[in-house]
Amino acid sequence: MSRLDTHWFTEIHEGAGSAFSLRIRKKLVEEQTPYQRIEVFETTDFGNFMVIDGCTMVSARENFIYHEMMTHPVLYTHAAPKNVIVIGGGDCGTLREVLRHSEVASAVQVEIDERVTRLAEQYFPELCELNEDPRATLIFGDGIQWIKDAAPQSLDVVIIDSTDPIGPAEGLFSRSFYEDCRCALRPGGMIVQQSESPLLHLHILRDMHTSMRSAGYNDVKTLQFPQMIYPSGWWSATIARKGEEIAGLREADVAAKPFETKYYNADIHRAAFALPTFLQQALAQ
Amino acid sequence: MSRLDTHWFTEIHEGAGSAFSLRIRKKLVEEQTPYQRIEVFETTDFGNFMVIDGCTMVSARENFIYHEMMTHPVLYTHAAPKNVIVIGGGDCGTLREVLRHSEVASAVQVEIDERVTRLAEQYFPELCELNEDPRATLIFGDGIQWIKDAAPQSLDVVIIDSTDPIGPAEGLFSRSFYEDCRCALRPGGMIVQQSESPLLHLHILRDMHTSMRSAGYNDVKTLQFPQMIYPSGWWSATIARKGEEIAGLREADVAAKPFETKYYNADIHRAAFALPTFLQQALAQ
Repeated sequence: MSRLDTHWFTEIHEGAGSAFSLRIRKKLVEEQTPYQRIEVFETTDFGNFMVIDGCTMVSARENFIYHEMMTHPVLYTHAAPKNVIVIGGGDCGTLREVLRHSEVASAVQVEIDERVTRLAEQYFPELCELNEDPRATLIFGDGIQWIKDAAPQSLDVVIIDSTDPIGPAEGLFSRSFYEDCRCALRPGGMIVQQSESPLLHLHILRDMHTSMRSAGYNDVKTLQFPQMIYPSGWWSATIARKGEEIAGLREADVAAKPFETKYYNADIHRAAFALPTFLQQALAQ
Repeated sequence: MSRLDTHWFTEIHEGAGSAFSLRIRKKLVEEQTPYQRIEVFETTDFGNFMVIDGCTMVSARENFIYHEMMTHPVLYTHAAPKNVIVIGGGDCGTLREVLRHSEVASAVQVEIDERVTRLAEQYFPELCELNEDPRATLIFGDGIQWIKDAAPQSLDVVIIDSTDPIGPAEGLFSRSFYEDCRCALRPGGMIVQQSESPLLHLHILRDMHTSMRSAGYNDVKTLQFPQMIYPSGWWSATIARKGEEIAGLREADVAAKPFETKYYNADIHRAAFALPTFLQQALAQ
C-alpha cells in the first residue's frame, strides 16, 4: 500500500472516509487572517494551489472548469446581464469570467477576506488579469450585509462563490439570504451558488433547493461538472431565478463569443443540467 | 496539514502528482494471482473495495455509475443488441447491467483472471447476482484470443472493461485488437471501452480515437461521467461503430425500461456525449 511522505498536501474529507492529495514542491505561504488560515503551495503537476482552513480551494491547472461553470451558464441564460455581483470568489477567477461578457456593465466582488485576493494577485495572477477593468469593483466586506443593503431590483445576477456551508460561509446557504438576494434582483434575475458534491453532499443540495424555493424563486435547477480537487471530484452549482423559468440559452451568442473557454460550450451548457436519476429523485422529494 | 495514518488505502497517480485515499476498516484479502495482486478492503464509508496492482478498481458505493455508463449507452443505441461480449469486467458488474436488457440473447464474459470473479462473488455478491442467468457464460481466458477466434459477424456489442493500458490490458488498446473486434461484429455493431481520465490521460484518449478510426470503424465518440475512485474523479468511455454512425438512442425503450438505474437516463445519455471544448479540440487533431 502506498504511503504519502511529507511532500504531499492531503485533505481528509471528514464524514466521507475519503481523502485527496497533491504532491507539493514547496509551501509558498502560510498565514492566519482574522477569518481563516490560508496556505499556498507550489505543486509538482497542478501549478500553484491555494488551501483555506485545510480545504482545497483552487489550483492553476484545473480551476477553469469551476470558474467557467459558475459564470457562463447563468450569464448566457440571462437575456441582458448588466449588473453582476460575486459574493466570495476572492481568487478573482469568477470575476474574470464575468468580465469577459461585454453585456456586463458592472461587476462587484464582495469578498470578506482581503488576504485571499492579495495572495491570488501574487500567486494566481492569471485569475486577476481583469481586476483593473473599469467595470470591476472589489469590495472587502460582508456579502450578506452588502446584499441586505443593496437597492431593490438593482441586480441581474448574483454569483455565490463561497467556501463550504460551515464557518464564515454558513449564512450564505440560508433562506433569509436568498430572500435578500431576491429582493435585490430585477425580474428575471438569477442567483447561482456552488452546491457541493452530488455524491457526498446530497442533503446540502436538497436543503438548498428547499430554501431557495421557499424564498420565492420561480425555478430552481442544479447543474454539475467535474472538479478534481474537490471532494469526490464531482461538483455542482444551483441556480434560482426570480419571476421566470431557467431557460433561454442565448445559443447564437455562445457560438459567437469573442473569448475562449476551455470547458464551457453550448453542448456542455445543456448537458450540465442533465441530472442522474438518483439526484433527480432526491431533489423531487 | 493532514497526515493519513495506517487506516487508509492510498493510490498515488504516478505521473499526475495526485493521490486518492479511502479509509479502511480492515483488509479482507490479499493474494497474488498469476496475473496480478488483488486486495479487498472493508472501508468505513464505501463498503467493500477491490484494488488490483495498487490501483482502485471497484467500491460498493459508487460502482453503479461506471457499470451503467459502460453498458446502457451502447445497448440503448444499438437497435437489437442480441449477442454481447464483455472483455475483462471480472467483477461482473458490467455483465449484470448487460443482462438487464431483455433483447440480449447471450452475454459472454471473458476475464483473464478467474480470481477476480471468485473474489467478486464473495465480496461483491450484488454485482454477481445475475451470473446464473441462462443467457450468461463466464469464460476465464484471453479476451484478445477469444475475439480473434470469434466467428465473423457474430457479435452486436463488445464491451472492453479492462484495467489501464499497461500490463495485461495493453493489447486491448491496439489497432489490431480493434480490427479483430470489427471483424467479429455484425454491421451496426459497436465496441465500447473505458478510456481513462479526460483531464489526466488526454493522450490515451487521442490514441484510442486514432487507432479505432484506422481500424475501419465509421464513427468514434467519447462519453464522460464522474468516477470518484479513479484518478481525477472524472472518467470516459469511447465507442466505435461498424458501418453506421453512433446515433439512434431508443428513447421510448429507455423510458419504459423494466429495471432501475441510479445514474443512467435518457438525458444523461445525451449529456454524456457533450464534450468540453479542450477535449473536442484534442480529439479533432
